[in-house]
Amino acid sequence: MAERIVSVIYDKIAFIGLGLIAGSMAWATQRAGAATMISGYARSEATRDTTRRLGFCDVVADSAVEAVADADLVVLAVPIGAMGGVMADIAGALKPGATVIDVGSVKQAVFDAVLPHMPDGVHFVGTHPMAGTEHSGPEAGFAELYDNRWTLIVTPDGADADAVDRVERYWAALGAMTDRMEVAHHDRVCAVVSHIPHLIAYTMVGVADDLRRVTDSEVIKFSAAGFRDFTRIAASDPTMWRDVFLTNKSATLEILGRFTEELFALQRAIRTGDGDHLFDYFTRTRAIRRGIIEAGQDTDAPDFGRGATR
Amino acid sequence: MAERIVSVIYDKIAFIGLGLIAGSMAWATQRAGAATMISGYARSEATRDTTRRLGFCDVVADSAVEAVADADLVVLAVPIGAMGGVMADIAGALKPGATVIDVGSVKQAVFDAVLPHMPDGVHFVGTHPMAGTEHSGPEAGFAELYDNRWTLIVTPDGADADAVDRVERYWAALGAMTDRMEVAHHDRVCAVVSHIPHLIAYTMVGVADDLRRVTDSEVIKFSAAGFRDFTRIAASDPTMWRDVFLTNKSATLEILGRFTEELFALQRAIRTGDGDHLFDYFTRTRAIRRGIIEAGQDTDAPDFGRGATR
Repeated sequence: MAERIVSVIYDKIAFIGLGLIAGSMAWATQRAGAATMISGYARSEATRDTTRRLGFCDVVADSAVEAVADADLVVLAVPIGAMGGVMADIAGALKPGATVIDVGSVKQAVFDAVLPHMPDGVHFVGTHPMAGTEHSGPEAGFAELYDNRWTLIVTPDGADADAVDRVERYWAALGAMTDRMEVAHHDRVCAVVSHIPHLIAYTMVGVADDLRRVTDSEVIKFSAAGFRDFTRIAASDPTMWRDVFLTNKSATLEILGRFTEELFALQRAIRTGDGDHLFDYFTRTRAIRRGIIEAGQDTDAPDFGRGATR
Repeated sequence: MAERIVSVIYDKIAFIGLGLIAGSMAWATQRAGAATMISGYARSEATRDTTRRLGFCDVVADSAVEAVADADLVVLAVPIGAMGGVMADIAGALKPGATVIDVGSVKQAVFDAVLPHMPDGVHFVGTHPMAGTEHSGPEAGFAELYDNRWTLIVTPDGADADAVDRVERYWAALGAMTDRMEVAHHDRVCAVVSHIPHLIAYTMVGVADDLRRVTDSEVIKFSAAGFRDFTRIAASDPTMWRDVFLTNKSATLEILGRFTEELFALQRAIRTGDGDHLFDYFTRTRAIRRGIIEAGQDTDAPDFGRGATR
């Protein structure tokens, strides 16, 4: 990590929801010295107790209203389906001039759920940190999660420019690279690069799990042959992903339609023995892989089972 | 690597086909001291010239017949679709008592193509090294490719037990873990753990490539959100994969049918808003992931963009 300039960006930050994403943000906020006080709240008492023990919040409140009192920044870090309810609960307790951000993977649905409750004089900015691990819960959080990963900033019409700039500076202080995107375009890009890949990975892992003639142990033993690359993303938080698909319905169904169309064309090529179709298709996809390596988003180092070299 | 006991397993080994797989086998053979002489042949003159320069063969012959003369082990390392033709060419030149192995990813089709040409007194053993990288050609080969990776040994009915044992010892000398499997079961297991995952990854990358509203640069820039895990396997050799699907038709079509059935059920759940179905499905797949980590086939270390930590 390059040396960070330590400076307070928000005096008090309140996290609603205390899982992997909020925990990592809080640790990174401490690392950057970006707040003077961090409060937090989670619906589950066990999660609140764990957070008190871990220490990434200065105060863990027993209600969301208490947590957001006097906060300059409120972070909604709950599943997308819970955002509207949380927002309704805390709306009356927000400090005038405060900023509320969410960290959901879908943006139009969050805007629809949250904006109707937003009081005058409180700013809302959508943010989407494109980072995660296969673990969830407060104990999964760590300060480096966002380092050199993208966080997308998605603003509703008429958002306050200064409030948006400040949110973007905050994410940069947490280590993230930031980019701004229009809401519908965001949901579509994420359907392609993230939501449909996750759905497909879940499906493939589910199919393997169902096949009793191929025993579980063989699927696991020989997983390095390709299957393993699917299991990594198919282990993400089920609640989060349920809400992603329920709330980014039109974009995911559209991309899924394209996917099954292409897959059927390849299936037909297999059935009819059309080797040229298969060869041409498999050749075309190599260029995208090269682009990803050239853009520094992956390495082309040989993969000897990973465990040994990471 | 642990220290290996160096001992000659075959006096002369001949590789037909000089790509990633054969090149890596030859380098690993040299490392292990498993042969006294290595010959090679590839159809392309450029490949033969490159191999002469690289030095993983003692002799690069100008015909397959010349390469296999007096060889104790002949390795067919050509695309599956070319195996039958190569075998027909070299059959008359094989030394009595020699062993021929292939390294294809599908076994029944190789048996069908190769066994009719096999002379009396020459042994055939199918082998499938489950290792590879996204690079192909003789320059892509390296001695460590098979270290601690599985090679499956698949034998035709009535195979000579001593010849099979020797082939298995040879693969162990190259660094591989070995396991034996019946031919139909092999083709089905590989359809699940490797062939269908590759087909799906190719399809997803192809869909992303086709979407003009989501620009290439965004797909690449934000690929770490899930998409990237598909591009790694979708960059493998197109000829090899074409032949895999053409020759493992029935197993791949069967697994593909199961996959699309499951995918349609998830698609319907998205369309109808059936969150319980999605949640239950996404929960079930986590157990398989845990199994893979416990079996030492991957790590659960957080993935910070990979490049930095490998």
